[in-house]
Amino acid sequence: MKKAIYFACIFITFSLIGACGSKNDGASISTEILSDPLPSWNDGKLKQSIIDYVTSVSTEGNANFIPEGDRIATFDNDGTLWSEIPLIQGLFAFFRAKQMIVKNPNLKNKEPFKAIATNDTAFLHKMGEKELFELVLVTHTGLTEAEFEKETDAFYKNAKDPKSGKTISEMVYKPQVELLQYLRSHGFKTYICSGGTIDFIRPISEKFYGIPPEQVIGTQFKYELEDSTNNLRRLPEFLAICDKQTKPVNIQYHIGKRPVFACGNERSGGDIYMLRYTQGSKYRSFQLLVNHDDAAREYLYQEKDSISLKWAAQHNFHVVSMKNDWKTIF
Amino acid sequence: MKKAIYFACIFITFSLIGACGSKNDGASISTEILSDPLPSWNDGKLKQSIIDYVTSVSTEGNANFIPEGDRIATFDNDGTLWSEIPLIQGLFAFFRAKQMIVKNPNLKNKEPFKAIATNDTAFLHKMGEKELFELVLVTHTGLTEAEFEKETDAFYKNAKDPKSGKTISEMVYKPQVELLQYLRSHGFKTYICSGGTIDFIRPISEKFYGIPPEQVIGTQFKYELEDSTNNLRRLPEFLAICDKQTKPVNIQYHIGKRPVFACGNERSGGDIYMLRYTQGSKYRSFQLLVNHDDAAREYLYQEKDSISLKWAAQHNFHVVSMKNDWKTIF
Repeated sequence: MKKAIYFACIFITFSLIGACGSKNDGASISTEILSDPLPSWNDGKLKQSIIDYVTSVSTEGNANFIPEGDRIATFDNDGTLWSEIPLIQGLFAFFRAKQMIVKNPNLKNKEPFKAIATNDTAFLHKMGEKELFELVLVTHTGLTEAEFEKETDAFYKNAKDPKSGKTISEMVYKPQVELLQYLRSHGFKTYICSGGTIDFIRPISEKFYGIPPEQVIGTQFKYELEDSTNNLRRLPEFLAICDKQTKPVNIQYHIGKRPVFACGNERSGGDIYMLRYTQGSKYRSFQLLVNHDDAAREYLYQEKDSISLKWAAQHNFHVVSMKNDWKTIF
Repeated sequence: MKKAIYFACIFITFSLIGACGSKNDGASISTEILSDPLPSWNDGKLKQSIIDYVTSVSTEGNANFIPEGDRIATFDNDGTLWSEIPLIQGLFAFFRAKQMIVKNPNLKNKEPFKAIATNDTAFLHKMGEKELFELVLVTHTGLTEAEFEKETDAFYKNAKDPKSGKTISEMVYKPQVELLQYLRSHGFKTYICSGGTIDFIRPISEKFYGIPPEQVIGTQFKYELEDSTNNLRRLPEFLAICDKQTKPVNIQYHIGKRPVFACGNERSGGDIYMLRYTQGSKYRSFQLLVNHDDAAREYLYQEKDSISLKWAAQHNFHVVSMKNDWKTIF
């Protein structure tokens, strides 16, 4: 089941869901003009390439100039803008499951709720793709949009990485928030194009990344308009999983323009089609692939088949070494 | 076949497709500050209601104040922003059919291409929904996005209403272009949410209405990414017909916020759910329904069941009488 690729990694880390309060408002960047627009990036070839590209395409008269309306940048989210270990939407699925048990204690007699309630990691590790999908569908749907919004609000307010104790906003990559702001300050319109579900990201896109909710593209559930209440209800069915070849398709639906700048990360080959798609632009384009090679400060994980790094070499994507290119990560 | 409702009216007027050049650049509005923001609207109760609403929600300190990011307005297109007799996308289907015959003369031996080539109105009138749908699918798909863009460019450059001789830009309603600009000048983000297909409207949305392509929502074909060419190909299948209850659904996918201002028109009941959806907003909202009651200057047509006007009365939508409320139409 190809659809399951994205969600299969939800349960890599699932221990306990943190639930302590936090007053940290996220990775906000001062709006004052900085002499160095990317202070969390180490000086070097890659940083200079980004600055050269952005400067050239936003300078009128330059051979590479791009009219402002066509300066479109799309970023993946998990592993690109925030950490994907543990997968934050996985934490949310557990949070929701626990909320559902509170409302309906009978669920505790049924797997996987029983295992979640008792933290039966042995059982949870053995769950197959089908069961994982069912949990995501059960925990994310059946609600109206307004009800779902309340759930995400409650989650983001208190959730923490059970291992590190970090709040969600502390899992955001500082260099990327700077890059997004740097692009916008040069007339780029910045979008998220994520495998995560769209309404899970929208509540924090503005606060964490300066990206308004309407510029978030992601995996979508089907909705129906309930005539009796005039509300949209989330149905337990996916409209489209926003991964691999579907990312360019969803970009076309939402934006209707080919981006000129795209950024993703290696892990599952999920972003390579989005990056390559930008190369069909009539304008000069730029591709950035985040390589998780920093075991000390974040994580070291590589694809088994190295498909993303292979494509990067073949198609001249710029590779970000988290270890070498990022001065500060969080 | 419910899906066919929108396209069933494509062939109401299908005579000949105009193909003479035009240098008119469309219904652009001077950007100078006008003492009357809506000069093509007659003074009166409705115009005053619009101004009162926009003023109150955009004035800080007012009880009805809406933060700028939540000032979302959605407009239908056919019959709301431009004339829908003849349906302009219908003219495009005929234009495309003729182009296809030029490339492949054998098509002339096959209906409905034969009837289109010979202007066999008797045959065309007898076409059922199934055949009409097939014509739209055949003429709008099978191309890459870039190829389709060339076709729409060629169409918009030369097409005319075969009856009136007007260019497409001359079929745009001037009062609505003023209203869109007035809303934007008060911090509203304006969107199109049309039953017409999204990529047919995007090429002219900025030029005709000041709405960037990424703020166009509409009916969508399925796409696939062609790995060999790195281009998106349009498949002969609809993803979603953007009509009736599907308008709020598509608004949620694209914007993720409930609009506070919506405008549609009576003809098929296609916009009433979008209008009513705005009434679920936590902010004060405004609904506008265009009534085609002007036989002298445009058209007089009313729904058989008057469903839109009935909903307007029941749910307090504001009704625009084209005859009485619009000083100038085009």
